[in-house]
Amino acid sequence: MTINANEGRQDMSTALLTDMYEYTMLDAALQDGTADRRCVFEVYTRRLPAGRRYGVVAGTGRLMEAIRAFRPTQDDLRFLADRHIVSQPTLKWLESYRFSGSIRGYREGETFFPNSPILQVEGSFAECTLLETLILSILNYDSAVASAASRMVSAANGRPCMDMGARRANEWAAVSAARSAIVGGFTGTSNLQAAKFYDLPAIGTAAHCFTLLHDCERDAFVSQIQAFGKNTTLLTDTYSIEEAVKTAVEVAGPDLGGVRIDSGDLASLAQRVRNQLDALGARKAKITVTNDLDEYAIASLQNAPVDSYGVGTQLVTGSGAPTCSMVYKLVEREGSDGSMVPVAKRSPNKASVPGRKLAFRSYEYNLASAEHVISGSEGALNTFQAPDDWRDLLVSYMDRGEANPEFLGHDALMRARDHRAQSLAELPIGAMSLMNGEPVIPSLEQML
Amino acid sequence: MTINANEGRQDMSTALLTDMYEYTMLDAALQDGTADRRCVFEVYTRRLPAGRRYGVVAGTGRLMEAIRAFRPTQDDLRFLADRHIVSQPTLKWLESYRFSGSIRGYREGETFFPNSPILQVEGSFAECTLLETLILSILNYDSAVASAASRMVSAANGRPCMDMGARRANEWAAVSAARSAIVGGFTGTSNLQAAKFYDLPAIGTAAHCFTLLHDCERDAFVSQIQAFGKNTTLLTDTYSIEEAVKTAVEVAGPDLGGVRIDSGDLASLAQRVRNQLDALGARKAKITVTNDLDEYAIASLQNAPVDSYGVGTQLVTGSGAPTCSMVYKLVEREGSDGSMVPVAKRSPNKASVPGRKLAFRSYEYNLASAEHVISGSEGALNTFQAPDDWRDLLVSYMDRGEANPEFLGHDALMRARDHRAQSLAELPIGAMSLMNGEPVIPSLEQML
Repeated sequence: MTINANEGRQDMSTALLTDMYEYTMLDAALQDGTADRRCVFEVYTRRLPAGRRYGVVAGTGRLMEAIRAFRPTQDDLRFLADRHIVSQPTLKWLESYRFSGSIRGYREGETFFPNSPILQVEGSFAECTLLETLILSILNYDSAVASAASRMVSAANGRPCMDMGARRANEWAAVSAARSAIVGGFTGTSNLQAAKFYDLPAIGTAAHCFTLLHDCERDAFVSQIQAFGKNTTLLTDTYSIEEAVKTAVEVAGPDLGGVRIDSGDLASLAQRVRNQLDALGARKAKITVTNDLDEYAIASLQNAPVDSYGVGTQLVTGSGAPTCSMVYKLVEREGSDGSMVPVAKRSPNKASVPGRKLAFRSYEYNLASAEHVISGSEGALNTFQAPDDWRDLLVSYMDRGEANPEFLGHDALMRARDHRAQSLAELPIGAMSLMNGEPVIPSLEQML
Repeated sequence: MTINANEGRQDMSTALLTDMYEYTMLDAALQDGTADRRCVFEVYTRRLPAGRRYGVVAGTGRLMEAIRAFRPTQDDLRFLADRHIVSQPTLKWLESYRFSGSIRGYREGETFFPNSPILQVEGSFAECTLLETLILSILNYDSAVASAASRMVSAANGRPCMDMGARRANEWAAVSAARSAIVGGFTGTSNLQAAKFYDLPAIGTAAHCFTLLHDCERDAFVSQIQAFGKNTTLLTDTYSIEEAVKTAVEVAGPDLGGVRIDSGDLASLAQRVRNQLDALGARKAKITVTNDLDEYAIASLQNAPVDSYGVGTQLVTGSGAPTCSMVYKLVEREGSDGSMVPVAKRSPNKASVPGRKLAFRSYEYNLASAEHVISGSEGALNTFQAPDDWRDLLVSYMDRGEANPEFLGHDALMRARDHRAQSLAELPIGAMSLMNGEPVIPSLEQML
């Protein structure tokens, strides 16, 4: 697999996809001698979006690529110099920058809860602080989309969900959203850049403009079938749905692939269209519905004869929660005597728990019962023996600068999708409820 | 100005930042002979986000660059061939694709309302349909951010607002968000890629990790001041704010540049910190507040001694409305006899008004009183004489493939920011109310 952090944007550096203060803090720390202090940063969220029972981690695979592409170009360095953002020695230091630390974290597709240590980044202050914004951008957006996707996939209860959201998100965010939707359990995307870059199934039907372009609906249907065969999906709601379905079967015959409905009362329309298709002999024709679907709309369609869902806006905007509010906090750093010191800020309502964490999930009768987030001295953590039936939630993504290939590329993405299904299946069934509620298992913080 | 559609992602094609059906519709239309029919597509939204009084157009400038970069690469074509998305003749046609049509639309920074024809794209069906997704992605996200930014800037009532949202958006969306924030009236961004690419003021203070890295807060402050001088902004809420302010003035003296508060009851804290700074002689030190600010929080701080606002999550996620729900609809196309035919779908609740539109704003006593969206026969539109005091809202962005330089580059972005201020000043003052309400002026649809 080739290294490519930018979803097709080859050879791009990600080094300026960050906030200015990362560079100015680096500069000051290099000057005062603290830049080399060993540090542990942790990514976590203080809360799930209101009412959500769990979240789904996504983005870590592509984050590893983005970190490897974090190499300031000559052009980037010139910008930092021209704007006097950092001093000359720091520019020199940046010329050879390459993250050489270690990263552990939750698997892609893992369910998470408040205070879950989703990512742990270890290295010198200098190399870790530069990555803050990039790490948060990727994990916050990708996990927001995967978390929403996962709820939609549960609500669809086995019927396939397809990403059609590109037009309602920034054009490059849409590429990441398509990938995150797959982690959340979606089966395809309309977005070609995502289909190409992540080797995903590309899907699509036709737009109303295609029908309107032609002198009549029949001409449009004939054209589409001539180009793509009978196993295509015809859009039926440009004029009268009933007429369109009649025309579709006249044109394609009983082997018509499917129809799409994009407006109106989707449940009633799907029922009418199913009956009409069956009466016309097109029993195998599938019905796809679209039109501002979210997990609630999908759930409400469970008794309607729908075969697949095309989801747009609410997928790519996280269905009301377009970010996960994850933060990146320094939890431990080397002191002047060389030993590691747990640290934490004490800001009102935003205080953090000092020290590197361990994370496990415990079970009762095969169902997850709690998330255990454990802190303590380095010695206590290293010798901690978790009960046999606890699951260790942290895996190694990067070891002293070397990315773990297990978490890179297309196969890793497919494994992430499988892992999301397994991780969700372990949770109490309340996780799949769309009713607002508390996180479905408690996060228990323990100090050794 | 060099052409660069990708915010620093040089030489990138935007040709696959689109939905698959654009290409399959193209393929079918090329086969059936309708691909060359002249078409007019319009971008508009059926409604503003719930309660919003107006929206702000953003993204058109960078869209023009993205359209010019819509040239499928050999690699893109190979993907389309390998996946059998289009046929061989269509691949051939795509090799020389370059949009050669014309585009008119609302200025960047213009306020808009339901049914405002924000963009009109004219050309052959083939060349126009390919652009649908890219156009909507850019306008929907950028306008969502600019619309939210504009409300925040009004609420700040002259105090500067700064974008600090990169970490809460997709990493490339954040670059566009920084640009859109400028259109909405923001004055700077923490995002270095945006600062570099769009030549924007870069801003930043320091993170809590910088204080925690050091053996004590004083060491951190001393380091920051040694690196950047006294005119820097120190972060005060890692431990005790009162202690931090005391230390800050001890270290920097009365010429301390400023302090940042990132937690707690910001109004009360700002007041206490102001009094403390004044008592310590640091009368010129500025107070910056951050911490999940939105337009409501900013408005509630109007009586607090705050000097500037750093806004993150709510800016880059459109403050509850992360997309503008804009659509791209075919409104007119050439018929088999060569004449132009207005067209519209009749989907329930999603019906559109056929025909190309004119758009004007009328005034009463120098305040905008209505948006006039006028349709009719080509002849009637061409000879329509608007009253003298109506403002024509449509400008020419691209003429037969040639972009209008007036709307490209940094200067155009600054003009867009100015235009947003002028356009907002023309609206009834209710536009600036944060109370939920109807669009502040009515959109009057008129058929000639």
